[in-house]
Amino acid sequence: MINILGKNNSLLSQYLSEIRDKDIQKDRLRFRKNLERIGEIFAYEISKSLNFETKDIQTPLGTANQAVLSDKIVLGTILRAGLPMHTGMLNFFDKADNAFISAYRKYNPGGGFEIKIEYMSSPSLEDSTLIISDPMLASGLSMILAYKELIKRGKPKHTHIVALIASQEGIKQVQKQLPKDDISIWLGAVDDELTVKSYIVPGLGDAGDLAFGNKE
Amino acid sequence: MINILGKNNSLLSQYLSEIRDKDIQKDRLRFRKNLERIGEIFAYEISKSLNFETKDIQTPLGTANQAVLSDKIVLGTILRAGLPMHTGMLNFFDKADNAFISAYRKYNPGGGFEIKIEYMSSPSLEDSTLIISDPMLASGLSMILAYKELIKRGKPKHTHIVALIASQEGIKQVQKQLPKDDISIWLGAVDDELTVKSYIVPGLGDAGDLAFGNKE
Amino acid sequence: MINILGKNNSLLSQYLSEIRDKDIQKDRLRFRKNLERIGEIFAYEISKSLNFETKDIQTPLGTANQAVLSDKIVLGTILRAGLPMHTGMLNFFDKADNAFISAYRKYNPGGGFEIKIEYMSSPSLEDSTLIISDPMLASGLSMILAYKELIKRGKPKHTHIVALIASQEGIKQVQKQLPKDDISIWLGAVDDELTVKSYIVPGLGDAGDLAFGNKE
Amino acid sequence: MINILGKNNSLLSQYLSEIRDKDIQKDRLRFRKNLERIGEIFAYEISKSLNFETKDIQTPLGTANQAVLSDKIVLGTILRAGLPMHTGMLNFFDKADNAFISAYRKYNPGGGFEIKIEYMSSPSLEDSTLIISDPMLASGLSMILAYKELIKRGKPKHTHIVALIASQEGIKQVQKQLPKDDISIWLGAVDDELTVKSYIVPGLGDAGDLAFGNKE
Repeated sequence: MINILGKNNSLLSQYLSEIRDKDIQKDRLRFRKNLERIGEIFAYEISKSLNFETKDIQTPLGTANQAVLSDKIVLGTILRAGLPMHTGMLNFFDKADNAFISAYRKYNPGGGFEIKIEYMSSPSLEDSTLIISDPMLASGLSMILAYKELIKRGKPKHTHIVALIASQEGIKQVQKQLPKDDISIWLGAVDDELTVKSYIVPGLGDAGDLAFGNKE
Repeated sequence: MINILGKNNSLLSQYLSEIRDKDIQKDRLRFRKNLERIGEIFAYEISKSLNFETKDIQTPLGTANQAVLSDKIVLGTILRAGLPMHTGMLNFFDKADNAFISAYRKYNPGGGFEIKIEYMSSPSLEDSTLIISDPMLASGLSMILAYKELIKRGKPKHTHIVALIASQEGIKQVQKQLPKDDISIWLGAVDDELTVKSYIVPGLGDAGDLAFGNKE
Repeated sequence: MINILGKNNSLLSQYLSEIRDKDIQKDRLRFRKNLERIGEIFAYEISKSLNFETKDIQTPLGTANQAVLSDKIVLGTILRAGLPMHTGMLNFFDKADNAFISAYRKYNPGGGFEIKIEYMSSPSLEDSTLIISDPMLASGLSMILAYKELIKRGKPKHTHIVALIASQEGIKQVQKQLPKDDISIWLGAVDDELTVKSYIVPGLGDAGDLAFGNKE
Repeated sequence: MINILGKNNSLLSQYLSEIRDKDIQKDRLRFRKNLERIGEIFAYEISKSLNFETKDIQTPLGTANQAVLSDKIVLGTILRAGLPMHTGMLNFFDKADNAFISAYRKYNPGGGFEIKIEYMSSPSLEDSTLIISDPMLASGLSMILAYKELIKRGKPKHTHIVALIASQEGIKQVQKQLPKDDISIWLGAVDDELTVKSYIVPGLGDAGDLAFGNKE
């Protein structure tokens, strides 16, 4: 199931417009804040599909029968670009466990590249609700590899894959290579073009550099 | 139109359960944080009903046709209990204008009380989209008086009245005394009982005291 | 005792430079964030002069003898301009009680104005450590009146008066009209000029308008 | 030069007491918030030693001669435990570049372990002011290795090493293995004991687990 939040206008559209804008994005504080708020919005929208149980809560004045979250949430993200959206997710799911994973493009001498995992920190994912977020779903290869690596730590009950901007190609690859039944896809917007260097166009540029500065 | 967000479970239910809980609410940092997050969620849900216009945004890699918010938002709140939810609203509508209003209960010697306005700071509301928030809609009298006082500053295009917990009586009064067409009501939960001292039961207690400490 | 934090350069100087800058201050999110961070910095610097007691804390691995704050803090602020700095103060003193006070200039038909209190919410201040913050100490009259009104709720053990920018005249008035022994003054910067309309020059403009938008 | 902020009581002492407390630390939101606030305090204290230049700033009412930060800051941290303090650092140095590095303990079959670098993302550090933070300086080996790896990206003008809790042994190793002249050490507290498994006692437990949950 694919949910494209940007199809209907909301504050997410406003934040996305600022994140894309090559002048506004020069303000790193606002750029990161926008990714955080977008992480919060995704967290909230995803929470509508989660499991709750009702409990009797003692207020100072009486007893309220109130729903509380019963799923065991794990928030996974891909370094370093995913960190601001992850911060937003964790602002909203403050009791969650967390998984961090880094992947890099290993360029081949003959051209092209492979995605390799280098860092991974994850709890057991058995029976968890896994939410993996990354600002961009470009070729989709990082997300696919991250997913495959993560589920070695146990089988989640359900996985939510979150990206702010996806390419058609990235969505196609995720749908092709990952199991359909257990996975929901949450997107902000879908852009048409993917360059040969796997940049989304019009996209937003390099989310990691814009949030944290260039790396060598 | 009345929208009760708590009818369907989401993170708002989780935060509301913590806010109601007489043990958890002792942690003022979490209590205020929960009200802030709830303010953010209401801001986001309300934003789905606002007006947007599309603009061409220059990204580092191309041009994106993207919706941006076109309504002129004014965030009003009632002191002091409304401040944490207002902070959340302003976190999400960061460009908004703001109105602050304070009302107090003037107890009559013969029993009963009137609501009086003492402090008010507001921009012109002409053609604005006004969002007034208060954690509790108990008797409804503060909200009704705040609305009537605010619109002396001009006629909003539309008004959104927001309360985390409302009593049936409060809703009834707002619907009776305020114009139906121009107003949407957004609630987290509706509780049945209203005491003679205008406390909602089971409610959460005194939101102002829980956020900021007792006042003399 | 007067402490002028801006005498020695630190991040406070950086934030103050952004707050003063007529272009940068157009970004309300950053303007409020800067006031919040400045509130946090004042809170931290003031905390160095507070009272602590040592307690044995059980860690997962042993026992640590650790200092914890023992003063009863009340954070007072003047509406509406003081709210962002107050938010910063409360971010750092998260367990504090809070006092809100509003004052307005009542202009006399014959010219000049008096400062009047209209809204006040405060706990008992008996034996408290009171910290009153306001971005600007211009004529000093609002702060003096706020102080006098607040201490009707009991005598604080000590009071810290905090302003980001003060005029020489404002400092003089506070020192003249308020008791010296029980009060410490904390400033970011001191500007020379005070206009006849009681604006500080070069100052920063109207802190309330810049944070929250114009009011009618 | 070693600066131990906890030698004099301040809000840092309060946050450290909560972070150490095995009951309070169960609230991950507060635990991370405390590490963030501590990151902000270190950022502010370090900023007092940085370079500033004065600029003429146009305010709405005049011209202010105001100091602005002139050093090029790079905020480095060690994954994953360092992330919350890094968030605090970045809250205060919002324009900084950032470096992330992960190190792990590779246990030898015959006992003991080596620290290995697996992930690193860093800008050029030539002429930068580098601030590397990690909650714990236990054996000191991760910090030493991180430093050595980072400076392959260029020679910083000065490096600030930050840890909330250090062991005597960790300090000794850093001083022995890293150049003295170019490095300042900033600590919250120094604990006496280091276990054979390189845990600090009394310490606080495992900062990464407490912030983000166990990892497998």
